[in-house]
Amino acid sequence: MPPLHEIAHLSHLELLTPRPEESLEFFTGYLGLTRTGAEGDSVFLHAWDDYERTTVKLTAHSTSGIGRTNLRAAGPEALDRLVSRIEATGRGLGWRDGDPGYGPTYVFTEPDGHEMGVYHESERYVPPSGLVPALKNQAQARPAHGVPVRRLDHVNYLGAEVVPNRDYARDTLGALVTEQIVLDDGNVAGSWTTFTNKGYDAVWTRDWTGSSGRLHHIAFATDTREDILRAADLALDHDVFIETGPHKHAIQQTFFLYVYEPGGNRIELCNAGARLVLAPDWEPVNWTEAERARGQAWGLKTIESFHTHGTPPVPDTAAAAVDRDLADSRVR
Amino acid sequence: MPPLHEIAHLSHLELLTPRPEESLEFFTGYLGLTRTGAEGDSVFLHAWDDYERTTVKLTAHSTSGIGRTNLRAAGPEALDRLVSRIEATGRGLGWRDGDPGYGPTYVFTEPDGHEMGVYHESERYVPPSGLVPALKNQAQARPAHGVPVRRLDHVNYLGAEVVPNRDYARDTLGALVTEQIVLDDGNVAGSWTTFTNKGYDAVWTRDWTGSSGRLHHIAFATDTREDILRAADLALDHDVFIETGPHKHAIQQTFFLYVYEPGGNRIELCNAGARLVLAPDWEPVNWTEAERARGQAWGLKTIESFHTHGTPPVPDTAAAAVDRDLADSRVR
Amino acid sequence: MPPLHEIAHLSHLELLTPRPEESLEFFTGYLGLTRTGAEGDSVFLHAWDDYERTTVKLTAHSTSGIGRTNLRAAGPEALDRLVSRIEATGRGLGWRDGDPGYGPTYVFTEPDGHEMGVYHESERYVPPSGLVPALKNQAQARPAHGVPVRRLDHVNYLGAEVVPNRDYARDTLGALVTEQIVLDDGNVAGSWTTFTNKGYDAVWTRDWTGSSGRLHHIAFATDTREDILRAADLALDHDVFIETGPHKHAIQQTFFLYVYEPGGNRIELCNAGARLVLAPDWEPVNWTEAERARGQAWGLKTIESFHTHGTPPVPDTAAAAVDRDLADSRVR
Amino acid sequence: MPPLHEIAHLSHLELLTPRPEESLEFFTGYLGLTRTGAEGDSVFLHAWDDYERTTVKLTAHSTSGIGRTNLRAAGPEALDRLVSRIEATGRGLGWRDGDPGYGPTYVFTEPDGHEMGVYHESERYVPPSGLVPALKNQAQARPAHGVPVRRLDHVNYLGAEVVPNRDYARDTLGALVTEQIVLDDGNVAGSWTTFTNKGYDAVWTRDWTGSSGRLHHIAFATDTREDILRAADLALDHDVFIETGPHKHAIQQTFFLYVYEPGGNRIELCNAGARLVLAPDWEPVNWTEAERARGQAWGLKTIESFHTHGTPPVPDTAAAAVDRDLADSRVR
Repeated sequence: MPPLHEIAHLSHLELLTPRPEESLEFFTGYLGLTRTGAEGDSVFLHAWDDYERTTVKLTAHSTSGIGRTNLRAAGPEALDRLVSRIEATGRGLGWRDGDPGYGPTYVFTEPDGHEMGVYHESERYVPPSGLVPALKNQAQARPAHGVPVRRLDHVNYLGAEVVPNRDYARDTLGALVTEQIVLDDGNVAGSWTTFTNKGYDAVWTRDWTGSSGRLHHIAFATDTREDILRAADLALDHDVFIETGPHKHAIQQTFFLYVYEPGGNRIELCNAGARLVLAPDWEPVNWTEAERARGQAWGLKTIESFHTHGTPPVPDTAAAAVDRDLADSRVR
Repeated sequence: MPPLHEIAHLSHLELLTPRPEESLEFFTGYLGLTRTGAEGDSVFLHAWDDYERTTVKLTAHSTSGIGRTNLRAAGPEALDRLVSRIEATGRGLGWRDGDPGYGPTYVFTEPDGHEMGVYHESERYVPPSGLVPALKNQAQARPAHGVPVRRLDHVNYLGAEVVPNRDYARDTLGALVTEQIVLDDGNVAGSWTTFTNKGYDAVWTRDWTGSSGRLHHIAFATDTREDILRAADLALDHDVFIETGPHKHAIQQTFFLYVYEPGGNRIELCNAGARLVLAPDWEPVNWTEAERARGQAWGLKTIESFHTHGTPPVPDTAAAAVDRDLADSRVR
Repeated sequence: MPPLHEIAHLSHLELLTPRPEESLEFFTGYLGLTRTGAEGDSVFLHAWDDYERTTVKLTAHSTSGIGRTNLRAAGPEALDRLVSRIEATGRGLGWRDGDPGYGPTYVFTEPDGHEMGVYHESERYVPPSGLVPALKNQAQARPAHGVPVRRLDHVNYLGAEVVPNRDYARDTLGALVTEQIVLDDGNVAGSWTTFTNKGYDAVWTRDWTGSSGRLHHIAFATDTREDILRAADLALDHDVFIETGPHKHAIQQTFFLYVYEPGGNRIELCNAGARLVLAPDWEPVNWTEAERARGQAWGLKTIESFHTHGTPPVPDTAAAAVDRDLADSRVR
Repeated sequence: MPPLHEIAHLSHLELLTPRPEESLEFFTGYLGLTRTGAEGDSVFLHAWDDYERTTVKLTAHSTSGIGRTNLRAAGPEALDRLVSRIEATGRGLGWRDGDPGYGPTYVFTEPDGHEMGVYHESERYVPPSGLVPALKNQAQARPAHGVPVRRLDHVNYLGAEVVPNRDYARDTLGALVTEQIVLDDGNVAGSWTTFTNKGYDAVWTRDWTGSSGRLHHIAFATDTREDILRAADLALDHDVFIETGPHKHAIQQTFFLYVYEPGGNRIELCNAGARLVLAPDWEPVNWTEAERARGQAWGLKTIESFHTHGTPPVPDTAAAAVDRDLADSRVR
């Protein structure tokens, strides 16, 4: 296995939305991201403590879902080694120009087909006048409206299968596998992997439709559990659909709130407290079906739509149809 | 400079106390650490989310202060490289048996003389019956008494000089320098360094007495800022001396509370929220004298005893005498 | 209607338990009440900010349930007026000696048969050495273990009918009705009433078994929502059965956690934030069936056992049998 | 003494500002009050959980300070009794039309000359479209920007003397005196009084300049201590001057943050947790000089400007001049 930390961290990602204006209002007004620019069908959004220029690239599209996930390599040599290993898997798509403020990016797909990019060079975010923070160790002034979320935390992909993606993350990208759901038949239904000292950065869970390339959710970190309770109160009075929570996951013990953005993508607000995975030889914690049946940490049953709603919707399944209707009614 | 992350994290450390029974009561009753064993003049204490066997080794001694700080290497090869570099500096003291549950440890001193050890092998903490947690991704049941702190967070050493220790941490141990206090005359009065994605693990600030080998404080992490407010309330009704706080540091933006344990050592309870230093090429944030004069984040002036109280006390300075009297009256 | 505030506040109450030792451990070890004395089959328990001597009188009994609820009259004249009105309803049982530290108490039952007492004279709680608080405006040192709860907050009675009890509270005791559940057929399924500026002190909800005199739950107040999240974490690792929560009620907007004490009684931990009902002419907020179907504030569905578990259990109903088995398995 | 609770609660008050536009931005943008209307030189502001139409009437004026404080009587008879007692003291100024949404108001001054009004009739706040809350037991949708504060909490007047005002509040208005500062010479330097179950609604502290009619601060309640920590973070990045805090008062144990609004008036954000004063015969807690010298609850020394800054400034004192300069530099 390659060494840990060749990928320094999860960087910005692209999110697709069929309702770009409403989604933009959600990301800026509710989540408290700052609009920093635009290019073509995309707007660039920045979370207040992201040291780089972009946190989310929000792109108008015919449907919802996730575009490219970008990962920052720890240095030029680490980038070279990563690219070599990726090329060796035959999944490389080649070098591309990065988004504005980002250097050359090597693009590839993991086995399930989600597009990813690795790069090292990037510009520091420089706050415009009016957004200069009071404390110089902070990227941007904290918005006075919305949640506001501190930074991107993780991505949870849906995959037709989990194991090939987990293995790719571990063996090619150098991720550490921290927790898993292992079914009674031995199949892995979910795998949590990390590039950092956080418990997880990239997660794969099984797509019940058998589709590839879909998204379960992306997550943003808040500083406290109170921020998440407050976010739930805000959701209530500002027409944001709450899917489930606030509550605490058994897996990773994350305090969570799940909402849908108007484009249909599921968004998590999460807080890990002071929990870190510091052991470089951490053994995956494997959860059984019986253990999962107990629900979340404090007993909340996992909500049914967690197993029926992913983006983009899959048009020809009954579950997707039901869910699409549901989402349509809910996100209004 | 060596690569980052060869040291995986700060591990357990030894704290010296002239009042071992009262200190033990403080660490178990107030901080909520669990006593796991004893050996000679030492007792071993475990924080509820430490995956290894020991968080603090508390040793009865003629005076207060810090003993060996242990650092876990990311793997056997990383350990070899670290030891080679340490030996090359001429500061190595050789291999020692680790504390119970820890493998061979290479012992050395940093330029100021604080004893340190690097090791890789260690046993996982196994909770005894009665301390088995409800969730299997947690090391130990959370105590129902005291704060209780989640894990050791960082050490702040006093040093006759800061720069040699900072350079040693960076160039020999592979630390990243994240923030500093740079005086108007160019001297560095404090340097914050990290081995992980946390903002800091090891800090050196200047010893006003010119002494070597002393301690400013050790710090434990709590999950929330509320935990720290609650810890302050507990301190009030349980005879724990509060030196300053709760408030928020400008440097690193840590929410803090400083108390003295009965042996005289300063203990910080700290919370970083979701703040992480993810940039592998983070440039040190340098604070000027003028900036420091503004006090802590929300305006609290840095307390005078921050510049007069370290452990062990230095017997032949007036400041130390004053402080010792103060501490004696306060910790009662 | 009589004037508001003749009853100053809900005072101590008696709780019955068939498992007195385990219940005592729950109330002292988990909730953080302090045992202050004993008499016959009862122990007296004190919450750290109760200015009077007793918060809960815990009595060993053949079954679970609630004994007498005591209410403090605002003064001697208010007590006289209350007793006159109670006598006029024919529900008076006469004067009794109060519990230790409490003066003469006039005992009566509300229409559903729950025993109540009104008194005015009472002694202040005087903390013994070791429990003297640091701040003189606080009744007792805050325990360093358990939640610990600050004070009793409210009682939720089950009643064969709601309206007669609501009317009795309003017309005889001088309560203000603040919120209600009004079914589509016009029946009132729940009524929240207050003697203070809190949103509610005494609640009646309909007993699905048609029984009289039973208890839905008693509730204790914590200072923050974080205290309740922490209480849920403690419950997890200290074998306390969580029924539902933490979440936020739609009715009264209370942040809550429901647990069962080992004797089977349901206990709520609750926090109202800074919410007060200050309007002396507050009009009841009436919730419809359709509104209740939306669940709690953030969407959590009301748990089924809320409609099947009361104390004492009713032996000859199927629901009670199911629930009893469930409770037996859960509270272990 | 008159019965408690004839005054139901502190209602809206008028605040004067020489910088009306900047003050309005502070109250709406930072505190999160909602502008509901205007009349002459005044704008009306509403806190999201105030059941009446106005929380603060902000009036452009040549200087800072407080205008009329309005108190709501519990009913028409209570209002009559209050007015009779006020008239008997010779301090009545007669009946006036209330502010929009408020009925006839009897105006008077307490002995120090602060203008007050008592009334009973008032209209309920009706949220306009776009501000309708999700939960019907809430006055207004919670703003998504600023703190936002829940409701007005208390007023702290400066008075040439304390005792006459305290006695007036107690003997004429029916307040309960809950805490006091009693100097070694027997003088009362501060008195906290309440009309409700809160620890205090109206406070008088001694004016060091010997002036009459000035303001120390007005305070707004937040739901949690976390809200106040967050308010401090917002202040930092949004140019709000923090005078002191966050910390916890020894007196009343209130968690606090003091800021100055641009007009110069001191504003407190406060949280009492679940603390209530429920005893109808509560004996005042008297704090000595020695006890006050220990500082606030966790040891913070009371800030010097607490004894030098009041509004309006007193032009001919040196202290006021110093403070005015300070304030000018700070509130920018």
